Amino acid sequence: MVTSLLKQVSFFKDLSNGDIRKIFSIAGIKIYAPGQMVFAKEDLGNNFFIVKTGRIKIFTTVGGGKKKTFAYLKKGDFFGEMSLLGGRVRSASAQAMEESELFVISRKNFKRLICENPDFSLKLLHTLADRLHKANKEVESMLFHNILGRLAEAILELSKDKHTKPVKMAIDQNELAQYLGTTRVPVCRAINTLKRGGIIDYRRGELVILNQARLQSMAGN
Amino acid sequence: MVTSLLKQVSFFKDLSNGDIRKIFSIAGIKIYAPGQMVFAKEDLGNNFFIVKTGRIKIFTTVGGGKKKTFAYLKKGDFFGEMSLLGGRVRSASAQAMEESELFVISRKNFKRLICENPDFSLKLLHTLADRLHKANKEVESMLFHNILGRLAEAILELSKDKHTKPVKMAIDQNELAQYLGTTRVPVCRAINTLKRGGIIDYRRGELVILNQARLQSMAGN
Repeated sequence: MVTSLLKQVSFFKDLSNGDIRKIFSIAGIKIYAPGQMVFAKEDLGNNFFIVKTGRIKIFTTVGGGKKKTFAYLKKGDFFGEMSLLGGRVRSASAQAMEESELFVISRKNFKRLICENPDFSLKLLHTLADRLHKANKEVESMLFHNILGRLAEAILELSKDKHTKPVKMAIDQNELAQYLGTTRVPVCRAINTLKRGGIIDYRRGELVILNQARLQSMAGN
Repeated sequence: MVTSLLKQVSFFKDLSNGDIRKIFSIAGIKIYAPGQMVFAKEDLGNNFFIVKTGRIKIFTTVGGGKKKTFAYLKKGDFFGEMSLLGGRVRSASAQAMEESELFVISRKNFKRLICENPDFSLKLLHTLADRLHKANKEVESMLFHNILGRLAEAILELSKDKHTKPVKMAIDQNELAQYLGTTRVPVCRAINTLKRGGIIDYRRGELVILNQARLQSMAGN
């Protein structure tokens, strides 16, 4: 039953029941309170995590307290592989945004999963390739677009799991600013521009996409 | 003998002789002339490449002909895995900078290598994690540093294989500008600032690092 439950979430969807049972048998479970850090940038990293429930923010901070959010992870997403595959030090911080349960897998068991379960490796490779693609697109986008294009891109990215018509999502301006790695004022201005253009609506922390096609063309898709 | 030759280059260093023979037996070889495109962004991608000899530039272009170089690849480096692991379309362009010989591996054989050779998967995972780390650092660096810090970072990154003392490398200002995804003028200004500070010397296309420690601290390392 656990196996079939797990198969509903993205990380496990493409894995065989045998693979999932294997992961389950070697993983511990840890619970994090809202706001609790899972690890901080520069920590020594020895564990790989899969989100069982909840929401995890991956972000970095640089001198002056400026933050940049790389991703919000949810049920079935994984993180922490970077310091098991490359440098031993965490390259970003991870924090629970709400109460979250995580599967925790040690460095040794992580290597064993890769060596013994090709589907697990393939899944990891697909996800890393996808994250790399996004990071490269972000570099491009920072070089070639202005804040409006980047905001349009961020809204599309953050709302891609929402299936209501029109698309609605709860997000506050500080979160959006951190996602773009900028401050609140330019984001607030850009939001107002999109509102005046009839492309989105935004009030009391709820963003509604009114014109998806224009948002896409602004994002350069 | 081919196997022992291959073991000298980075991609093959950690692979067993059996793995290398396997790669070799299923790979074709193609030769590219200086300036020849291996593939262009948006092409359908069906092959994975390993550099046997030569130098390959990975870059992207966006409206207006602006270019951004992601990497220079040399003997033993690989590329082309992104459209075999994710979307089928090339996310960047690849071009030979000099005459280059490439091992060419089809989509089907690439999948087979992953499924049958865990060391090959591990090697791919390590490299993707490393590239992702660099891309994230670049996003950070674009958000938090000015052009001087980014130039310092690029010089350190591009010179990390040079082992002369002091470190010397041939690179022209246009290449540096493309690496940073900017134009020649700000790069030229930043180079002059570093020269005046006694941190580098640069003349006739040759860059010499005079003060590695200060370069590192400017790069935020």
